[in-house]
Amino acid sequence: MRRPSDHLRPRRCTPLEAILISAAQFHPDRSAVIAAEERIRDHVRRTPAITLPGAFGLAGVLRLKLEYLQHSGSFKARGAFNAMLSQPLPDAGVIAASGGNHGAAVAYAAARLGTRAEIFVPASAPAVKVARLRAYGADVMQGGASYADALAASEARAAETGAARIHAYDDPAVVAGQGTAFAELAPPGAEPDTVIVAVGGGGLVGGAMAWLGGRSRIIAVEPDRAPTLHSARAAGGPVDVEVGGIAADSLGARRIGGISFSLAARYLTDAVLVPDTAILAAQRRLWDELRVIAEPGGATALAALLCGAYTPVPGETVALLICGANTDPGGLSA
Amino acid sequence: MRRPSDHLRPRRCTPLEAILISAAQFHPDRSAVIAAEERIRDHVRRTPAITLPGAFGLAGVLRLKLEYLQHSGSFKARGAFNAMLSQPLPDAGVIAASGGNHGAAVAYAAARLGTRAEIFVPASAPAVKVARLRAYGADVMQGGASYADALAASEARAAETGAARIHAYDDPAVVAGQGTAFAELAPPGAEPDTVIVAVGGGGLVGGAMAWLGGRSRIIAVEPDRAPTLHSARAAGGPVDVEVGGIAADSLGARRIGGISFSLAARYLTDAVLVPDTAILAAQRRLWDELRVIAEPGGATALAALLCGAYTPVPGETVALLICGANTDPGGLSA
Repeated sequence: MRRPSDHLRPRRCTPLEAILISAAQFHPDRSAVIAAEERIRDHVRRTPAITLPGAFGLAGVLRLKLEYLQHSGSFKARGAFNAMLSQPLPDAGVIAASGGNHGAAVAYAAARLGTRAEIFVPASAPAVKVARLRAYGADVMQGGASYADALAASEARAAETGAARIHAYDDPAVVAGQGTAFAELAPPGAEPDTVIVAVGGGGLVGGAMAWLGGRSRIIAVEPDRAPTLHSARAAGGPVDVEVGGIAADSLGARRIGGISFSLAARYLTDAVLVPDTAILAAQRRLWDELRVIAEPGGATALAALLCGAYTPVPGETVALLICGANTDPGGLSA
Repeated sequence: MRRPSDHLRPRRCTPLEAILISAAQFHPDRSAVIAAEERIRDHVRRTPAITLPGAFGLAGVLRLKLEYLQHSGSFKARGAFNAMLSQPLPDAGVIAASGGNHGAAVAYAAARLGTRAEIFVPASAPAVKVARLRAYGADVMQGGASYADALAASEARAAETGAARIHAYDDPAVVAGQGTAFAELAPPGAEPDTVIVAVGGGGLVGGAMAWLGGRSRIIAVEPDRAPTLHSARAAGGPVDVEVGGIAADSLGARRIGGISFSLAARYLTDAVLVPDTAILAAQRRLWDELRVIAEPGGATALAALLCGAYTPVPGETVALLICGANTDPGGLSA
């Protein structure tokens, strides 16, 4: 996958442009998403959606965006490219801490943009994920017991080398980049009644809120064993939570990002919880009825519909994303 | 999956209408495909396509139709519905011989239309496929050493019960039904330069030729161990061939259908062969780069591009279908 495309290498923005971009995006909104779309369009795939009236026995009309087709297997490529194209990148390249989709996205984007990537992952990261990061050309630094350890190590290393840190979700450029998925899924004049979004650290739901504002109902879904947004709403602000469960590798942030928490106060309709059993059932039905492989976090939004955590009314249009990279398809052997 | 939808049950056509439909479709053409589309539109999914400039290192622009999202997992649902809605169905229901995609499609369509289906499969049919047919509500008759035995048994049974036989490919209504996939993939004014189609018995490529006529180049692709069309072109007419290889369960017809052979004389640009190794490599790359699970037959058209059996020129638009039902995703475990 190391295929630096020199003819596609973008012009890097100047430091002044970077400051202006950053200021404009501190509270990412619709215009930030539009700017992100222009910035990343030559680097990401415009993924299709399928409309399914009456699928899964639901009363509403389901619109599924097939974001597993995206480069690196998830929407995270959108935020990673937007963050990396919104700042002058130092010679030391970029640094991220993640053994999951964000790490893969940063590694992929760095290879495409011809810059260096160091990805810090905990010692427990599965060999298959480490191999994928290396296949994209990243330098993988493995160590420490937890994601928090890897994050601390990445920050120490960035302070030493001057590499740009690419946060997984609490960065206005990352949030605006994820918003481009909703610009495609819910274009002006064709907004669905309701958008359902799985939440870990909140980058994706932040993007949905930045793009949609109040144009569609927005329902956040979290595994009941990783309730960062739910707990923050109860506490009146972001708090650390215990995380676990089958979707922890993609939705296992310990604390909701400040950007998304603040957008949620204005634009979020509701936040619901789903059990791991519902996530597993949604994965199974995606395979049985659509031949789609989704990782647990990528099936969590659908799980809310299938288990009744959110019930559409007849005729209601409901849109959501399906992702799928970080999973071993062998789990679905018949 | 047994969910008879009475409100969707179509009006059965009269015997006279059936004769008129049959006469009009004996040489299926563009108007037969348009009529098929109107007939089946409430029963099949309009599957999306993704456009991929420069994907897989190819010079051209690739347009992939994600037909694995179709009911029963392949385009076969289109032909099955069109065949069953083009004739008055007897009380004895329908009969098909197939342990693969056609059998699943007929079983699914019969359940949706509230009619009985008997599916004949050889004794060697894998338990997982038999279970899928039963899950759709079909009566599965298992016996005989080969597909030819199952076909003979199905014909004897149909003569006894009066059930309607639904042929897997050499039926004008089936060919026109498969053509609806190309009406979506290559709509008027947006035809790709080239369409690449995998061939077993020829139902799908027949549909492509019926719809496209000479509007796009049409390249047929066969596994080199199941060369029905290739051999027919060499012999000047359909001939039986030895079939084997990894795609035999979906592309393993022993003889090209007469309808498609006759259309090929007018509309086919070329027929190429690919080895099993190229099909396996295409399956692997669909998972690695798009997170799509395709069965061998569903990856065969792409294999022709990836192994160089067909090489597009820079800027050439190339379109093809990806299917995926009859595979065990465990084969792609990392």
